[in-house]
Amino acid sequence: MSASGNYAVTGTDIAAAAARIAPFVIRTPAIAGSAVSALAGRPVTFKCESMQRTGSFKIRGATNAVRSIPEADAPRGVVTHSSGNHALALATAAAERGMPAHVVMPANASPSKRAAVERAGAHVVTSGNTGAEREAMAAEVQSRTGATMVPPFDHPWVMAGQGTIALEILEQVPDAGTLVIPVGGGGMLAGMTIAARALRPDIRIVGAEPELAGDAEESKRTGVRAAQRPPVTIADGLRTPLGELTFPVIRDLVDAIALVSEDEIIAAMRVIFMQEKLVIEPSAAVGVAAILAGRVGGSLDRPTVCVLCGGNVDLAQLPWSMPNMPNMPKA
Amino acid sequence: MSASGNYAVTGTDIAAAAARIAPFVIRTPAIAGSAVSALAGRPVTFKCESMQRTGSFKIRGATNAVRSIPEADAPRGVVTHSSGNHALALATAAAERGMPAHVVMPANASPSKRAAVERAGAHVVTSGNTGAEREAMAAEVQSRTGATMVPPFDHPWVMAGQGTIALEILEQVPDAGTLVIPVGGGGMLAGMTIAARALRPDIRIVGAEPELAGDAEESKRTGVRAAQRPPVTIADGLRTPLGELTFPVIRDLVDAIALVSEDEIIAAMRVIFMQEKLVIEPSAAVGVAAILAGRVGGSLDRPTVCVLCGGNVDLAQLPWSMPNMPNMPKA
Repeated sequence: MSASGNYAVTGTDIAAAAARIAPFVIRTPAIAGSAVSALAGRPVTFKCESMQRTGSFKIRGATNAVRSIPEADAPRGVVTHSSGNHALALATAAAERGMPAHVVMPANASPSKRAAVERAGAHVVTSGNTGAEREAMAAEVQSRTGATMVPPFDHPWVMAGQGTIALEILEQVPDAGTLVIPVGGGGMLAGMTIAARALRPDIRIVGAEPELAGDAEESKRTGVRAAQRPPVTIADGLRTPLGELTFPVIRDLVDAIALVSEDEIIAAMRVIFMQEKLVIEPSAAVGVAAILAGRVGGSLDRPTVCVLCGGNVDLAQLPWSMPNMPNMPKA
Repeated sequence: MSASGNYAVTGTDIAAAAARIAPFVIRTPAIAGSAVSALAGRPVTFKCESMQRTGSFKIRGATNAVRSIPEADAPRGVVTHSSGNHALALATAAAERGMPAHVVMPANASPSKRAAVERAGAHVVTSGNTGAEREAMAAEVQSRTGATMVPPFDHPWVMAGQGTIALEILEQVPDAGTLVIPVGGGGMLAGMTIAARALRPDIRIVGAEPELAGDAEESKRTGVRAAQRPPVTIADGLRTPLGELTFPVIRDLVDAIALVSEDEIIAAMRVIFMQEKLVIEPSAAVGVAAILAGRVGGSLDRPTVCVLCGGNVDLAQLPWSMPNMPNMPKA
């Protein structure tokens, strides 16, 4: 597949984003996953965005957005509505540029998440709990403050920032044959796809999505952007539907979307904790689950690189019963 | 300090061990620890033996021992007494050479640890709970079977195997200024010290030890090998006293032993889980605790490499209260 279409971002945008955000993000490690490789029968490497600043890849897009805002607009700050990793990332990136950040969070957001965003320096605005109420409140804040809206995924600045993950992967694992990338709103998947296709037109790119949030798979299959599913999957970072800008990239340039069940996500998360010894959040287990289920295809000989997209998980509420598990042999 | 003395192993032994065990162990990643570096005000890299096969560095020494046994003795197998990581490592290494392994475990060992050792293919022999009873039972098994005794640390084969960690570190982080290495029986600390001093006579080497198991610090300070402490520290892999072979190396060639409190160990473990997003066991937090407490000395500019020695921890019993902790900002 070639990147011949006219999409929201280009490889040049992503290269510029990489230079722009480099001082503010971690070049996260690429770690060979020996247990998953043995279980899957193919060499698998993890791109550990779980170890990224703020605990997820979201700081890349947020920083690229914040640093792309013209000087004249900067004093009025940024605004978003999110109760997840994007909120913390945007708050952090804005604080680093000395800009105000307004984050609209629903009244039912967890107090700890709200506190983390406030600790990062953002002004948290409480809205009603529906998506419409949150969007309305964000629009109200924007019109009142003149802040620049930085949505969590459907924006060229954000997509370009997330795309930088692919540039690093292709430097760290130059012979990668397949990329496995979790998909929610599609900012990471679309951005990485543009970047990877520009450098390696033949690389296999597979999105990984929970069955319970399978709108991306349906959208790609039908060619029509599908509606959001009820937000019930344990992979809470992937509950959002594709955006207007991310969808065309995924429709045209991604090879496939692999669906996984909730049980497969939890089992994969367990393997990553207990055998690979990495702390990840459920959304980061979705790509691993697709690999372990044998649903990503591509070469079994060349490295498959799987993005572990975040590590922000409540260690007191890990989703498996753990009566005992010392000394788990690795591979 | 120069390695002029006459010790149980030499740099040549360790280089030979590295070649011998290479097909059977993971060259574990060296990962920059951004949160710990920021907290400590010095660049810290983790050598992740937590990601080693069997979940700890012990597979290195066990494999070197198993592969050093002459062909004629191999059929009679190996024997050890251990209820920890060494038992699982020796069982695994022996099974890979097709040799029987006898592991003496006390009656009060946890059923899950016993099951893990049995899954790895070892014959588990139950002894009384005192150290004397365990040693007596191991001697009985040895005399009955003719198996080769492979103790957990005080043996040249084992020390040489653990020393290979240092060779990898000096390749991965060639400008390392300081090594921080947890010390229990001292197999890892002594082996790594011999290896590192042979290549980099000027490198700073600091052992890290729980106050509650501070026999190594006392031994080094007094010049007389101190008695074992009551086995109460949470760092259960470090409760053993120094051995006859490991002590002289640590006495002569290690720069210092840093002591840390139980609270410091738990706080360090928490930082590693929540900010560095790595799964480690308490013993692996001891070096991190020494760094965070400012007790390792040496250059603040050159990289400090800290060995995360194991990752076999019961995730249902993490030693902190965790009402909530999503979205912890990293660094």
